[in-house]
Amino acid sequence: MTYRPVRLGVLGLGRAFMLMLPTFRNDERVRLVAAAAPRAESRDAFVAEFGGRAYGTVEELAADPEIDAVYIATPHQMHADHVEAVAAGGKHILVDKPLAVTLDDADRMVAAADAAGVRLIVGPSHSFDPPVGLARQIIAAGDYGKVRMVQAFNYTDFLYRPRRPEELRTEEGGGVLFSQGVHQIDIVRLLCGGRARSVYAMTGAWDPERPTEGAYTAILDFEGGSFANLTYSGYAHFDSDIWMDDVSELGGCKDPASYGVARRALCDLDPEAEAQLKQTRTYGTGAEPPRPEANEHFGPIIISCDRADLRLMPGGVEVFGDETRSFIKSPLDPAPRKPVIDALVDAVHRDRAPVQTARWGRASLEVCHAILSSAARRKPVTLTRQTGIETEETQL
Amino acid sequence: MTYRPVRLGVLGLGRAFMLMLPTFRNDERVRLVAAAAPRAESRDAFVAEFGGRAYGTVEELAADPEIDAVYIATPHQMHADHVEAVAAGGKHILVDKPLAVTLDDADRMVAAADAAGVRLIVGPSHSFDPPVGLARQIIAAGDYGKVRMVQAFNYTDFLYRPRRPEELRTEEGGGVLFSQGVHQIDIVRLLCGGRARSVYAMTGAWDPERPTEGAYTAILDFEGGSFANLTYSGYAHFDSDIWMDDVSELGGCKDPASYGVARRALCDLDPEAEAQLKQTRTYGTGAEPPRPEANEHFGPIIISCDRADLRLMPGGVEVFGDETRSFIKSPLDPAPRKPVIDALVDAVHRDRAPVQTARWGRASLEVCHAILSSAARRKPVTLTRQTGIETEETQL
Ligand SMILES: NC(=O)c1ccc[n+]([C@@H]2O[C@H](COP(=O)([O-])OP(=O)(O)OC[C@H]3O[C@@H](n4cnc5c(N)ncnc54)[C@H](O)[C@@H]3O)[C@@H](O)[C@H]2O)c1
Ligand SMILES: NC(=O)c1ccc[n+]([C@@H]2O[C@H](COP(=O)([O-])OP(=O)(O)OC[C@H]3O[C@@H](n4cnc5c(N)ncnc54)[C@H](O)[C@@H]3O)[C@@H](O)[C@H]2O)c1
Repeated sequence: MTYRPVRLGVLGLGRAFMLMLPTFRNDERVRLVAAAAPRAESRDAFVAEFGGRAYGTVEELAADPEIDAVYIATPHQMHADHVEAVAAGGKHILVDKPLAVTLDDADRMVAAADAAGVRLIVGPSHSFDPPVGLARQIIAAGDYGKVRMVQAFNYTDFLYRPRRPEELRTEEGGGVLFSQGVHQIDIVRLLCGGRARSVYAMTGAWDPERPTEGAYTAILDFEGGSFANLTYSGYAHFDSDIWMDDVSELGGCKDPASYGVARRALCDLDPEAEAQLKQTRTYGTGAEPPRPEANEHFGPIIISCDRADLRLMPGGVEVFGDETRSFIKSPLDPAPRKPVIDALVDAVHRDRAPVQTARWGRASLEVCHAILSSAARRKPVTLTRQTGIETEETQL
Repeated sequence: MTYRPVRLGVLGLGRAFMLMLPTFRNDERVRLVAAAAPRAESRDAFVAEFGGRAYGTVEELAADPEIDAVYIATPHQMHADHVEAVAAGGKHILVDKPLAVTLDDADRMVAAADAAGVRLIVGPSHSFDPPVGLARQIIAAGDYGKVRMVQAFNYTDFLYRPRRPEELRTEEGGGVLFSQGVHQIDIVRLLCGGRARSVYAMTGAWDPERPTEGAYTAILDFEGGSFANLTYSGYAHFDSDIWMDDVSELGGCKDPASYGVARRALCDLDPEAEAQLKQTRTYGTGAEPPRPEANEHFGPIIISCDRADLRLMPGGVEVFGDETRSFIKSPLDPAPRKPVIDALVDAVHRDRAPVQTARWGRASLEVCHAILSSAARRKPVTLTRQTGIETEETQL
């Protein structure tokens, strides 16, 4: 069944929007028809590329009658206000991860979407990556029994990518938990059924120049009995992409000669110059979006089931069974974040919710906070606001 | 300075002894002069290969006046009685890991070695692997700051190697904790300073046919502030040696065509037939010991310091610094477990203790038990019997 393209408005034409461009440019099921952004330069670029309407405020965008849904790609701490504004305008919502910084904001967002009767999808998130979906299908087919343990780790240069100042202040959503941990949490929750029971974790904030969490290790256990370790370091030393066919998080091929480049680029920059540098990578500056050559990923993930381990790779899922090993391919789509658009089409045309609803996003955010608080208190933290992988229909 | 060779007696001519053969045959600093073992076949093979004396009991071996030290390579649960007997004979002791199964036994062993004034070394253990020693030197040199986080994981076929029945019963020291976990714990403690403060863990026992722990994930935190994740699965699915240059735990090159071979070999064997199969890999049966082609290892281990991550590899240590990455080699010695013999020579000729004393071994055993009890109680367990990396002189 084919539907007319989803008419999408975009709020925020920054880095996150850049990363969606290969999808927006290649997936015919979605058409960008409007945007709102404070920078005239990015608004002009938007109109030049997509036509349509460019506004200065979220309210104008939300009031646009020719829009089905809005992609909110503004900084974390603005997501709640922006979701409320867009929901008030009766539009469906795709809001980038994390849902919010505070759980109070998350509550407001759940309520706003419910009250307006609109669908809210938290995404993109690496839980939409095709190999993750493939692994879920393999698990659901049942040949390999239950998921018992998941090991997920990722060593990146996250802490040394150019940042806005608040991205380095934990209480404002800075550090690796809210921007990166939430991907890992989303994926692991998806694989383990969603409802985590408790978290125990240690965190590290080792660079006094960038005094937010740059690393953590956490154990989650789930209803149903499975458990997981999630480990992350964003300190730009070891790079776990060497275990992912040298494919980067965004699906690009890595150049081994680029070792140390993130730290070097920041060398001697003050916070203002650093925020400027981030801006140069944004929409309307002539910078080009990444060109994925393989699926995106979030680091090595090994899923231990009763009768096989599944290993997520950029190219698919490697299955290590009792007798044999095999590789099930997950081809790269020309629209690399196709599963996100699938969810958008389902929301707009079929009134169907994805797994990654506002409640889902709130549950992942709860885990981010639990990791921080477990590490601070040196105790396991019990979780109370988890959701399963049923769709929102069942949850309501 | 050169000493006369250490005159070593061996107790137990089973699988562990086989694995020491490449060292005993190639390290001129040690001479095998006596053995005690219940099987006549292995005693005869010993005398045929090494000359010397072969006994039926530990008491006879311990009474042999021409022995400096005894290598105890009997099943875990016998270690305490055997250490007491050998200490009573006034011989230094190399006892294979784990020190014991129960902490009461460990206490007896500490007391026995102290009372007799003999040195006790717990080894071999992968904490003696040359790349681990190299990493300690790199850390001690101080260029990279403090150890902050260690990530250690290992996916093997441990649970499907042929076993004696008690090796599959946790309360008798079976399962992955006592035989395998203890290696990982030893290494991580060595890298983090030894004194763990608490443990939080989950364990998995997923094969009803082999109903002991086959997997775990644990977080340890240490005095000094570093922390570590240790993850292990012995379920013979994913094999993490693919991230160790395809080198096996024992330093051999792995043949990718051998996938699934451990499980297939056990197929349809009852426990007795399985124990028999284990015996065929033992000394005096014509079976050959492994031929290491690289250093032994215990799976991927990433050590995050302030200014570098260190990655342990069979060939050495890869250093991922702020600016550059480099590889520091650790060549394979013809006597592959040379650091174990270094410790033995130090004990016998210089009255010097290694880090891996009876107290050290007891502390690692405490962590094994803490992992089991944390998983059972779903709570962190506080550790009370840890030792540092000072030598025994300081500890006493
Ligand atoms: N899923 C991913 O791969 C991914 C990648 C990067 C960022 N993100 C997420 O996207 C969000 C934005 O992060 P970013 O790195 O793109 O930041 P950014 O600073 O590059 O972009 C944010 C943009 O929002 C605009 N903006 C600010 N206030 C606005 C307002 N009131 N109305 C409209 N636009 C406004 C800014 O001008 C800027 O262009 C964050 O929540 C982040 O977690 C997701
Ligand atoms: N460090 C390593 O790489 C490594 C490898 C394997 C085993 N181990 C350790 O070595 C120990 C033995 O394990 P294994 O796998 O060799 O078992 P095994 O069954 O192959 O060998 C044990 C041997 O002890 C002998 N024995 C039993 N009772 C005895 C007695 N009273 N006196 C003398 N000998 C006696 C048995 O005949 C047998 O040959 C265990 O503690 C194990 O953890 C260490």
